[in-house]
Amino acid sequence: MSLTTIRIRFLDSAKLDRAGAEPPSFLDMPELNIFCDYRLEPDVLKLLQDGVAPHRIIFPQKTADTVLQNPGPDPAFAQADIAFGQPDVRSILASSRLRWVQVSTAGITRYDTPDFRAAARSRGLILTNSSGVFAEACAEHVFTFMLAQARQLPVALQTRVAHSSAAWAHLRAESRCLKGQSVVLLGFGAIAARLVELLAPFQMKISAMRRNPKGDEGVPTFTPDLLPSVIATADHVVDILPENADSRHFINAERLAAIKPGAIFYNIGRGATVDQTALLASLQSGHLGAAWLDVTDPEPLPEGHPLLTVPNCHITPHTGGGHGHEAESLVRHFLENFRLFLQNAPLRDRVM
Amino acid sequence: MSLTTIRIRFLDSAKLDRAGAEPPSFLDMPELNIFCDYRLEPDVLKLLQDGVAPHRIIFPQKTADTVLQNPGPDPAFAQADIAFGQPDVRSILASSRLRWVQVSTAGITRYDTPDFRAAARSRGLILTNSSGVFAEACAEHVFTFMLAQARQLPVALQTRVAHSSAAWAHLRAESRCLKGQSVVLLGFGAIAARLVELLAPFQMKISAMRRNPKGDEGVPTFTPDLLPSVIATADHVVDILPENADSRHFINAERLAAIKPGAIFYNIGRGATVDQTALLASLQSGHLGAAWLDVTDPEPLPEGHPLLTVPNCHITPHTGGGHGHEAESLVRHFLENFRLFLQNAPLRDRVM
Repeated sequence: MSLTTIRIRFLDSAKLDRAGAEPPSFLDMPELNIFCDYRLEPDVLKLLQDGVAPHRIIFPQKTADTVLQNPGPDPAFAQADIAFGQPDVRSILASSRLRWVQVSTAGITRYDTPDFRAAARSRGLILTNSSGVFAEACAEHVFTFMLAQARQLPVALQTRVAHSSAAWAHLRAESRCLKGQSVVLLGFGAIAARLVELLAPFQMKISAMRRNPKGDEGVPTFTPDLLPSVIATADHVVDILPENADSRHFINAERLAAIKPGAIFYNIGRGATVDQTALLASLQSGHLGAAWLDVTDPEPLPEGHPLLTVPNCHITPHTGGGHGHEAESLVRHFLENFRLFLQNAPLRDRVM
Repeated sequence: MSLTTIRIRFLDSAKLDRAGAEPPSFLDMPELNIFCDYRLEPDVLKLLQDGVAPHRIIFPQKTADTVLQNPGPDPAFAQADIAFGQPDVRSILASSRLRWVQVSTAGITRYDTPDFRAAARSRGLILTNSSGVFAEACAEHVFTFMLAQARQLPVALQTRVAHSSAAWAHLRAESRCLKGQSVVLLGFGAIAARLVELLAPFQMKISAMRRNPKGDEGVPTFTPDLLPSVIATADHVVDILPENADSRHFINAERLAAIKPGAIFYNIGRGATVDQTALLASLQSGHLGAAWLDVTDPEPLPEGHPLLTVPNCHITPHTGGGHGHEAESLVRHFLENFRLFLQNAPLRDRVM
């Protein structure tokens, strides 16, 4: 892709304020090095390389086994102006050159510490995540959990019974409509906002817990101190919390006990936000009607873990954000932000 | 409940046209016999009896084992002015006294014949069904199927894998978002109308097949002759057809072959609308991506039936319409129509 092509793309961009001045002269910007430790298939890598040219992608000398593990420092990192993927925290903090990190997940656990936040603030380092890429799939995933529970899907798919048999009548009577029920969302970001949209036709009573309600949530919000009274009446409690020092084991024995008996708990956030021993006890006692988890601590749970066999616990293996052409979506999301970065415009999904 | 009480209820009814004349003098109406062969628990039966008083409920001398089987003629039926449940076709046709039948299901298969329709028309017999009671649950049920398929729920619930393993990457890549996909509804009644509402936030391309489009569907409609071209591009095909002579094996080998390769088929209508041999072949060949069936022919499928074991076929045992307090919902729905009947007002869910 030539320089000319890039300029044409910028001039064509719907995001450009056509009535305003000429776009910032990004062509004057020195060539940037973009460190990418996200492993990409050749066609998607080409999309990324073409999309950033004439700037260039540089690669780690070693690659991570998983996006959720820290690969450790990499010698190539020192040359990076921008990083895309899951770059090593110490390397970020050690670099004086780095200006922007785009994390390839929605979660930013490893970066979400007071020290990192302070360092980023003092140096003007930008941190964005990829929540926009995963929000739709995560919202649909946890919404699927809610409906599957209401319609008793796991049991129904394994039941072959005659009409009007006792088992049939029981299964029909246990089945529910979501319409008119109540739900509490713990955390309010892109996933929660989308879930609220998906739930709209069900005329549910929805409220959301947020550390700092902003008033733009579109549903009633409350601060964590009010949680016990709210969860005492909700049919569904949806954990969409990120993992950080404040959220670790947020769902503990005390809060589980405050949940309305028979209510359903869902986790599409992070596994460590739940005290799993307390969750297991609540499920076994029948206080909690059921749990649906896309995240656990650790992932996967070790063979023989009791949450794997308690019948009212349903676990998917952190596939909530998954969708076809995921890597391509991540790269396109990065490229959108890269264009904004070159224009000095506000980036999407900025978290620091 | 006294006569006075009933009059007060009528005068309070929101359905009454307060600006119009006095309501029809239902108190002049002779006491009506309401034949009910729907087996009710004592509290729900009391709701029904109180609701119709001073008119009275009469019972069959023998009761049906299932709402979907025909119990045959019953001696008590000859005294009935109204019937609620699943009354015997021959008894209905033999009665000169009967004026209205409310079927306790959404399906009216046993009554939906040219002979029965002609007899009902010539005698002014009204037939209503209970589709309003089941539409919400059925719409939520098939919507659950669509989301469970998109999120690969049956596989995901049984998969315990490490991040970035090949199995994990595959499962995430196979997962989909419903957003932006296309769906064709076969049949358009209360269930389809509600499903269209539930799908609204997903910005899907929706169209509906209807024998006689009325223009009030809110989505593009087409007649059955145009089906092949429409299903050639749809990601989801949802069968909501009733069972009658026209719909039997409507989904046959030819129509299955016309469906877009990899598309998903759902049946929340009636099992007999599908040629199951052709369905099996299409699933086994991989032409159809998957099938999700709440209805089969017969129900349940006999032990060893190949649809029970083909991995991309998911079956629930006709629990689509099930919901808590179902019998109570049916009785309340009947009582609503009973009030309208006494007022000579148009009945809800009238099908003949």
